[in-house]
Amino acid sequence: MSDASYAVTEQNRVRRVPHRGHYDRATIHRLLDAAQVASVGFVDDGKPVVIPMMVARDGDDVLIHGARKGRITESLTGAPVCITVTFVDGLVYARSIFHSSMNYRSAVLHGTARAIDDPDEKLAALRIFSEHLMPGRWDEVRAPLAKELKATQVMRVAVASAAAKIRAAGVLDDEADYSADDWANTWAGIVPIVSGFGQPLTDAAVPDTVATPASVAWLAGAKYGAR
Amino acid sequence: MSDASYAVTEQNRVRRVPHRGHYDRATIHRLLDAAQVASVGFVDDGKPVVIPMMVARDGDDVLIHGARKGRITESLTGAPVCITVTFVDGLVYARSIFHSSMNYRSAVLHGTARAIDDPDEKLAALRIFSEHLMPGRWDEVRAPLAKELKATQVMRVAVASAAAKIRAAGVLDDEADYSADDWANTWAGIVPIVSGFGQPLTDAAVPDTVATPASVAWLAGAKYGAR
Repeated sequence: MSDASYAVTEQNRVRRVPHRGHYDRATIHRLLDAAQVASVGFVDDGKPVVIPMMVARDGDDVLIHGARKGRITESLTGAPVCITVTFVDGLVYARSIFHSSMNYRSAVLHGTARAIDDPDEKLAALRIFSEHLMPGRWDEVRAPLAKELKATQVMRVAVASAAAKIRAAGVLDDEADYSADDWANTWAGIVPIVSGFGQPLTDAAVPDTVATPASVAWLAGAKYGAR
Repeated sequence: MSDASYAVTEQNRVRRVPHRGHYDRATIHRLLDAAQVASVGFVDDGKPVVIPMMVARDGDDVLIHGARKGRITESLTGAPVCITVTFVDGLVYARSIFHSSMNYRSAVLHGTARAIDDPDEKLAALRIFSEHLMPGRWDEVRAPLAKELKATQVMRVAVASAAAKIRAAGVLDDEADYSADDWANTWAGIVPIVSGFGQPLTDAAVPDTVATPASVAWLAGAKYGAR
């Protein structure tokens, strides 16, 4: 069984505003599970490259999918990788520019990637992606063909270290600004940022007799990036 | 005057589904201007690190703000940096797992970072951040004090290369799946993902007599991450 928390090291320690740091797997997994896309960083010829990729969690591992085929295989296999997910939850309107801020949730994970080449493992990984991004859809549509599996790149990242950083709070102003003549009568507060799924747009080739399936119906009103 | 487009090189060329690649500054700037946070990648001790940071555009440069103070100064100054912004616009429900996809807009920028140390340049940069994230707010609240300016880290990134990648399309299935008995009657379509600003939450210390200011009022109904 894996530890409940990642060890705090020089690699993952949250240095700035350390009380916003979280190292427990439950918090980090919750952020991964809320994400559809991660920013995946790797080093290519000594330079940093950050590519958005579809992401899904498989236990303590992270599956990534969708980058440039040649480059990802070459640059990611066996190499250190950094996977970052971020949600912006609100704007913090403080009484000073300095304390103006954002509410956010982010997780930064460090690990090593390997390509999934075994067809059975790849099929299982694709099913995890599908169930994560479009729950229930796998059983409604055509399964991948052998040639499609071959054309798909999926990587598995073993996570060695990780941390989350979360600001979920109200306005935090300097004492002086609450009482100063100029600013005590200034509006301050939080403007939330909310995301969700819109009305499904049916493809023109779908016959009128076909109803919205279960995999889509549940999305109505569901929050995107929810806690 | 800068060129209308970035040169296509090995660094920025979109290899997979190349017709989704865009190299013109107008498209890349529009994506930056829609973003509040970017995923900023740099190399630290040979390993990739990706940190979410507030982002704003200043002409062709990108301003970044908000990472770990010591690390950013040490690792980013004069070093190559990769700045990536991503918006997930919808889920593509195809008739096969293989063609199931997402609509998205992303931009990946490569450049070199330098710390902004000059107080006047830093103040100007903070104003650009403020006007980008909370238009009109700068003039409503207390300006930064000298000690606050000193405690704030802002970096300027000169962009050398960049590309955007955009999928904004309907379902694209294989011909065979439109006519196959099994899948011709399967629902397919797009489920949009939409983001916006919620109802402002007024800080408890604000007197009842204080109205919502202009910088907040405009947000009602405004889209987040809009085109």
